[in-house]
Amino acid sequence: MENEAAGTSERRGGVRVDPRLVPGRSDRLRRQVEFLLEIDRLKHTFRQTILLDRSRRENSVEHSWHIAVSAALFCEYASTSGVDLGRVIHMLLLHDVVEIDAGDTYCYDEQAGADQREREQKAAERLFGLLPHDQARDFRSLWDEFEEAETPEARYAHAMDRFQAFLHNYFTRGKVWRRHGIRRPQVIDRMQPVERGAPLLWEYVGRLIDDAVQKGYLAP
Amino acid sequence: MENEAAGTSERRGGVRVDPRLVPGRSDRLRRQVEFLLEIDRLKHTFRQTILLDRSRRENSVEHSWHIAVSAALFCEYASTSGVDLGRVIHMLLLHDVVEIDAGDTYCYDEQAGADQREREQKAAERLFGLLPHDQARDFRSLWDEFEEAETPEARYAHAMDRFQAFLHNYFTRGKVWRRHGIRRPQVIDRMQPVERGAPLLWEYVGRLIDDAVQKGYLAP
Repeated sequence: MENEAAGTSERRGGVRVDPRLVPGRSDRLRRQVEFLLEIDRLKHTFRQTILLDRSRRENSVEHSWHIAVSAALFCEYASTSGVDLGRVIHMLLLHDVVEIDAGDTYCYDEQAGADQREREQKAAERLFGLLPHDQARDFRSLWDEFEEAETPEARYAHAMDRFQAFLHNYFTRGKVWRRHGIRRPQVIDRMQPVERGAPLLWEYVGRLIDDAVQKGYLAP
Repeated sequence: MENEAAGTSERRGGVRVDPRLVPGRSDRLRRQVEFLLEIDRLKHTFRQTILLDRSRRENSVEHSWHIAVSAALFCEYASTSGVDLGRVIHMLLLHDVVEIDAGDTYCYDEQAGADQREREQKAAERLFGLLPHDQARDFRSLWDEFEEAETPEARYAHAMDRFQAFLHNYFTRGKVWRRHGIRRPQVIDRMQPVERGAPLLWEYVGRLIDDAVQKGYLAP
């Protein structure tokens, strides 16, 4: 009854827009607003990574915002000059949206990783499918581009995704690495997208990895 | 001692980068990384607005991400056609960063609003001042552009800022409006940037305001 009073009905935890209140009963605007409301749920998806003050885990929205800012900040280090920064940022803002349905998969969890791709494809289908057709196609194609990691923009975007998580691990003294018994070769492997997408930042990462092992944040 | 062991020292809750580990001891890269780490603190700034499932307040980073996505989503409704979307998104990602020092000021709190501008200017000075000179200037100028709300990009950005908060208030059945005894004319006044920056969305907002009053989410 409370839902009805709100002019909304809840569906998989989401919110539905009353089409009678949308100007011209525009199906397009209704879909756009429903998508915007639906992605609010990403604020409840928590990652393994913790905040720098170590008070709690970071959620996927916070991570997405942080790497979108980092893309603007570190643009000069992209391996290909002249990347379309707007496209990179748009990609980064959306890249984790599928976790609303598929959850966050810890990067060193091989078991969960096995069906991750399938879960995420399904999620992309449903979530971007909420949008009007042209936007569903455009947003989905940005998400696919990120996943394929082949264009200069996607490669740089991946570098940002990994670099921020790495900095959080290092500057929280490896709290999460230690908890999971992560070893140096795993981190080096995980950081290859940084080498590929932003070589100078990779040089910095390499030094911090050495330092992390020396200080006991990371197993050798 | 634990700080020293981490190769970092804490300063106003922030993290300092050890320059000896930065490739070429680059002051530029050190500043960029320190800025990125510093802005992690915005994840601790909570707004009055609540999440759609009403479980908790939203933080300023979550809000920033949400309106950056909304800018891409609703671009066709901007009052000026051909706005530079990349610029709008960059502006929105940064617009709340000053709250790290200045805190979030509730929009209907006139007392706190009185010295808000001064507090935020000081914060902008300190925070963007962490960056290398050219980026300090560029990021600050984007922030100033947003504050002045005069360019087509800044006007559309403001519309997004207000529209998302409004939707959260409406779709959580006015929980926050009711708690603060907010009335219809205050909301109409607060939503003027939507009328200015995205007229069709304003039409939708107007209908939802009427509906909110009718349903008792908002006082007349």
